[in-house]
Amino acid sequence: MGLVIVGSLAFDTIETSYGRRERIVGGSSTYCALAASFFTQPGIVSVIGEDFPEETIDFFKKRNIDLEGVSKEAGPTFHWEARYGLDPNQRKTIKTELNVFENFKPVLPTKYKKVDILFLGNIDPDQQDDILVQVEHPKLVAMDTINLWINTKPESVLKVLEKVDIFFANEEEIKLLTKQTNLIKAGKRLMEMGPSFIAMKKGEHGALIMGQEFVFGVMAHPCEEVVDPTGAGDAFAGGFLGYLDKVKSFDQEAIRKAAVYGSVMASFVIEDFGIDRFKSLSPSEIEERYNTLKKLVSF
Amino acid sequence: MGLVIVGSLAFDTIETSYGRRERIVGGSSTYCALAASFFTQPGIVSVIGEDFPEETIDFFKKRNIDLEGVSKEAGPTFHWEARYGLDPNQRKTIKTELNVFENFKPVLPTKYKKVDILFLGNIDPDQQDDILVQVEHPKLVAMDTINLWINTKPESVLKVLEKVDIFFANEEEIKLLTKQTNLIKAGKRLMEMGPSFIAMKKGEHGALIMGQEFVFGVMAHPCEEVVDPTGAGDAFAGGFLGYLDKVKSFDQEAIRKAAVYGSVMASFVIEDFGIDRFKSLSPSEIEERYNTLKKLVSF
Repeated sequence: MGLVIVGSLAFDTIETSYGRRERIVGGSSTYCALAASFFTQPGIVSVIGEDFPEETIDFFKKRNIDLEGVSKEAGPTFHWEARYGLDPNQRKTIKTELNVFENFKPVLPTKYKKVDILFLGNIDPDQQDDILVQVEHPKLVAMDTINLWINTKPESVLKVLEKVDIFFANEEEIKLLTKQTNLIKAGKRLMEMGPSFIAMKKGEHGALIMGQEFVFGVMAHPCEEVVDPTGAGDAFAGGFLGYLDKVKSFDQEAIRKAAVYGSVMASFVIEDFGIDRFKSLSPSEIEERYNTLKKLVSF
Repeated sequence: MGLVIVGSLAFDTIETSYGRRERIVGGSSTYCALAASFFTQPGIVSVIGEDFPEETIDFFKKRNIDLEGVSKEAGPTFHWEARYGLDPNQRKTIKTELNVFENFKPVLPTKYKKVDILFLGNIDPDQQDDILVQVEHPKLVAMDTINLWINTKPESVLKVLEKVDIFFANEEEIKLLTKQTNLIKAGKRLMEMGPSFIAMKKGEHGALIMGQEFVFGVMAHPCEEVVDPTGAGDAFAGGFLGYLDKVKSFDQEAIRKAAVYGSVMASFVIEDFGIDRFKSLSPSEIEERYNTLKKLVSF
């Protein structure tokens, strides 16, 4: 397998200034895999309940996403409810019902064990570690996390961080983990903790990628209508890792371009609720926006 | 005259996580003119008290800054005191003593009236307007403002805004003025209010420049030691307008490069307290950092 994505498949109830949607399909691996599917054929490791829609499964298959790592269990699918402020950077989690995710013991299908690129979405760090011991010599391991785990299981987060190559995190998570308010210092500190690359997600301000030898900054696409920010970070990781899997290179040039494709995929997902924007998205739109981001910073 | 800068010459008392400095030289026209002086020979319109140091006057002269528009009045120079948080984005004004600035009636020297580029720093909008009526056919007028004037004299701010070509403002000011949380929408709204270009300053995230036909994003230089953020916005405007005056062009290419030089000059000023960094700065350091900002966004 080229790229395997571990994360949630979920129902999300979302309220933004553009409206409210009840129990629409979401989850970190949903957003990440759909974004990656425009570059490669990723596999998902996750768990769903009996209520997860066949229609979404069909859409995953249509996009050549491998679902051998998705198990179906008795009970309801993971459900998350959140409300965004008028400023879409402000988000409040209203409810988290783990449901079938609560006792999720991820077991990798045999063909996933020889994976090139493994993405550990923002699940429990102990579950992330359970996955890590099952893979054989991956070329690149990336992880994401959330404040919840940094606050409740810091040692587990640090243990996984030590073993990964790329760490995806937003500004708040980075500052919480490093106790540093300066992002550049924080990035250097994080690289001392394990990863070779830090992908710092800054929402509307884009992202900074730090490596041992370079810093790369990518802008966010100037977006006037942020309908639903949910999944932007996962789509960023999906575009980023999907592109790396496509080009089979992890050199600086590839990492820079990967970050731009990450920003492009994130910019699409926020234009509509849930995964709807992916349904109409064409490869030429992706290339067009890649070029827009190039023009945006040209001087 | 090529570039005339209207703004304060001041004493600043500053506390940051790097220490405290009592009554060091500051002020918007100080920072703006010094930054611009690396590209052109700007003039300042301002007022000082009898206590303003000769040493700084000499430094201005050494940098070929024209001081014919600076009047000296009986009484103490404008004094501002502020404290920054551990996070340098958080600033609290402790004290503002207007002193000789209180009754400042700016009168332009004759040679300043035929100015190419006029910068109206963040002084009282009625004073900005008093200046505007004195200039004859300037090619480009730029203005800055602060929350204080947007809150206390919104109509005066809007009146000046209508007459200028470039509006420099930070995110908070833009949102306050337009009641818009989305920066892109806010920028478009501002362009309907008068200016052809909006320079949106975003601190560590750099700046966005919006014109009728384009959006340009420039990064901030990745800085690990933000010693004193005071004057960054004025140095940005100084580098920006100084470069435009040097190349005598306001086309899109010039505007883009001007914004990069603005970001470069802002990045130097925050590396030390007050204006100290300008004392050791060399043109080759400026070019080097310009190239660093180019490399930072290359893909």
